[in-house]
Amino acid sequence: MTVTIVGVGLIGGSMALALKDKGIATKVIGVGRSATSIAKAIELGIIDEALPLEEAVKQADIIYVSIPVDATIPVMIEVMDMITDKQVVLDAGSTKAALCAALKDHPMRSRFVATHPMWGTEYSGPEAAVRGAFAGRACVICEKEKTDTAALELVENIYTTLGMHIIYMDAVNHDVHAAYVSHISHITSFALANTVLEKEKEEDAIFEMAGGGFESTVRLAKSNSAMWAPIFMQNKENVLDVLNEHISQLRKFKASLEKENITYLVELMENANKIKKILK
Amino acid sequence: MTVTIVGVGLIGGSMALALKDKGIATKVIGVGRSATSIAKAIELGIIDEALPLEEAVKQADIIYVSIPVDATIPVMIEVMDMITDKQVVLDAGSTKAALCAALKDHPMRSRFVATHPMWGTEYSGPEAAVRGAFAGRACVICEKEKTDTAALELVENIYTTLGMHIIYMDAVNHDVHAAYVSHISHITSFALANTVLEKEKEEDAIFEMAGGGFESTVRLAKSNSAMWAPIFMQNKENVLDVLNEHISQLRKFKASLEKENITYLVELMENANKIKKILK
Repeated sequence: MTVTIVGVGLIGGSMALALKDKGIATKVIGVGRSATSIAKAIELGIIDEALPLEEAVKQADIIYVSIPVDATIPVMIEVMDMITDKQVVLDAGSTKAALCAALKDHPMRSRFVATHPMWGTEYSGPEAAVRGAFAGRACVICEKEKTDTAALELVENIYTTLGMHIIYMDAVNHDVHAAYVSHISHITSFALANTVLEKEKEEDAIFEMAGGGFESTVRLAKSNSAMWAPIFMQNKENVLDVLNEHISQLRKFKASLEKENITYLVELMENANKIKKILK
Repeated sequence: MTVTIVGVGLIGGSMALALKDKGIATKVIGVGRSATSIAKAIELGIIDEALPLEEAVKQADIIYVSIPVDATIPVMIEVMDMITDKQVVLDAGSTKAALCAALKDHPMRSRFVATHPMWGTEYSGPEAAVRGAFAGRACVICEKEKTDTAALELVENIYTTLGMHIIYMDAVNHDVHAAYVSHISHITSFALANTVLEKEKEEDAIFEMAGGGFESTVRLAKSNSAMWAPIFMQNKENVLDVLNEHISQLRKFKASLEKENITYLVELMENANKIKKILK
């Protein structure tokens, strides 16, 4: 199969490598706005050639759109206006409600699969692409009933071959849950980085002290704003809802310390420990 | 050398293994309050034998105290009341100001080295002890001028042999910095776990969605309250200071979303990205 990847960054690049490694794609065509990224993707063997969008879509069996979510809707409509009913289009976006709503009346809606492979790192661009990504992770598919059976099965098989397990969810629920298990982690990490940078301005030595705990908590603060700002904006209501809850949880810790109420503090921590059962 | 480890948990246990592996300790004696932990530590080959505190101190060249910080002060005084000027005592606590203040007029103060090896995991107990811990991390030594040169050099050599680099700091500064690079990460992680547990009560499926980002941000929420509650309490003023700053940083994200001010949101994220330069 020929696969066109629109957006050869972290996700698109890793997907291109996985599709080739698994023998799913015999040819990968890349589409990108930045000449540098495209050149890098070719150099790294991520894509076989680069073409303008229209030509790339024409030649593809599958079109995989993996660009920032604010750009996804217009590009997706452009792509779907061009495809035939032999082609399949999917996206990898971290928000699903706005995109699904925008495409719901498109004549080619049945050839589109709304997906969110739950994998990523804090790095970006084609040089961030990694081999063996996605395996062991969940992939959410939304509104499967709006996709043709054959197109859906093709996409399910691809993700399953990559080692992912599929979860079905409606698009609105997806966005609620993504706010909890992904978006809020990014915001707390960004905010934690800013907290520490704010307070430790004058000191270099201090960062020598930073152990593994700090690094893992603040790791996501390295993430790309071009990717994440549109996600937060598009999922604003849910993100604000979780953020308010998170601030109120932090205030409980604050209150327990201010009142030197160690019983309450321990209770808060022991409740948090329940996350053990949930994370493997 | 015979080393007595008071508290054979994550830190004490890992230290025992490291001291043996590096040929520093020819014999490790363990002291612990829990018979189960002591039995486990013997079974795992972490300690050679278990003795009551008094006997264990008598036989040791070095006494390493690695117990929760609220228990450290009384135990340390008990230990230092027993030692001769041929013995060296050190601790591994995450707070240093209260301990250093409590010991400042002790007649054996010069045989005590206040240390904080900046290593740990979210697990606890002797079964959490790992080989090869500490290497590549920083170890803070406080108030080195209050320790005999020979005792100080012995301890510096031990940590250096374990692959740590040493940072000298006064105890009060240590606690300020520890609040920033360690304690706040734990609080945000605990609070994030509670946020998600609160909101996702009814749903199991959602946690299947949790990717690597969530896991790394929430990992520290598995940490032991018996170890961490006393740290937060002992470092209350600094922790509250950082916590207030962190809540105000989160409010900036909240404001940028509420006002749909993407320029401001991107600015906050790009500032956070500066953490890249600091973390290797």
